[in-house]
Amino acid sequence: MSIIQELLISNAAYAASFDRSQLASPPAKRLAVVACMDARVTVEEILGLRTGDAHIIRNAGGVVTDDVIRSLIISYKLLGTREFLIINHTNCGMATFTDEELQQRMAKEHGVDASQIHFHAFGDLRENVEAQVQKIRQSPFIPQAIPVHGLIFRVEDGRLEHVVSA
Amino acid sequence: MSIIQELLISNAAYAASFDRSQLASPPAKRLAVVACMDARVTVEEILGLRTGDAHIIRNAGGVVTDDVIRSLIISYKLLGTREFLIINHTNCGMATFTDEELQQRMAKEHGVDASQIHFHAFGDLRENVEAQVQKIRQSPFIPQAIPVHGLIFRVEDGRLEHVVSA
Repeated sequence: MSIIQELLISNAAYAASFDRSQLASPPAKRLAVVACMDARVTVEEILGLRTGDAHIIRNAGGVVTDDVIRSLIISYKLLGTREFLIINHTNCGMATFTDEELQQRMAKEHGVDASQIHFHAFGDLRENVEAQVQKIRQSPFIPQAIPVHGLIFRVEDGRLEHVVSA
Repeated sequence: MSIIQELLISNAAYAASFDRSQLASPPAKRLAVVACMDARVTVEEILGLRTGDAHIIRNAGGVVTDDVIRSLIISYKLLGTREFLIINHTNCGMATFTDEELQQRMAKEHGVDASQIHFHAFGDLRENVEAQVQKIRQSPFIPQAIPVHGLIFRVEDGRLEHVVSA
């Protein structure tokens, strides 16, 4: 069976017991989470969030890019969130390469010029979390009244470390 | 209790029964999903995915921005994914405003110039899904050999509609 067939069968089972049709669009906990796309970081489970509780924004690294700022503006301005979390994690793929290396691989193996892409690879995990919180704090588009927390998820034991308090 | 305290208590319970320390970084199903940040779209549950199965990329709208292309490059090039899904959903907040309206609100209510921000508000849902698939298909950075599917999640009944086949 193809992956898409398998997923659609799983979805039919999900829909058969679906009981969330009355949920409103604004997140119940007025929370937005920015996290890494990593397959091991199941954000809702890690935080005990239920469907409907929070906006979940994810990308490679859990990095505060312009696109994340765009999403956060829509989140607080149109859908009423009032608190933000940034989650990075141990053993992240983003710490295994440099932007220059990946740019060179793209040129060599695919013949495309990726030299303008900032991949946001990083070295020190804790510093990276702190830098992402700072990017939100320094954005003119995000009110200072919104608390921003920085956390590290440990893929080794499932624990969250609260490294930047709002 | 504050939200962050509540989430950290939930995480302690998650960690106490944590059994996923042996998962590898590359997604088991070699799949990457791009979906909306909406609180009602719990991607893993909707698709029957388990922790470790897939990269999950989410932003406002489930829009293929430059940041999503960045994440997808890292996903297939460094972590071996071989199939992509785009998921938009009914009753999306992105269909309730225009970019110009939000730019004007940001200027009026926060005194900031957001006129350079492309918020990616949209009108027709199905057309938006098709446009996101096309953006991936036309990117020089994503190989044509990677199948890209477009789906609509119906928040009314939990069903996925497969609107663009790879």
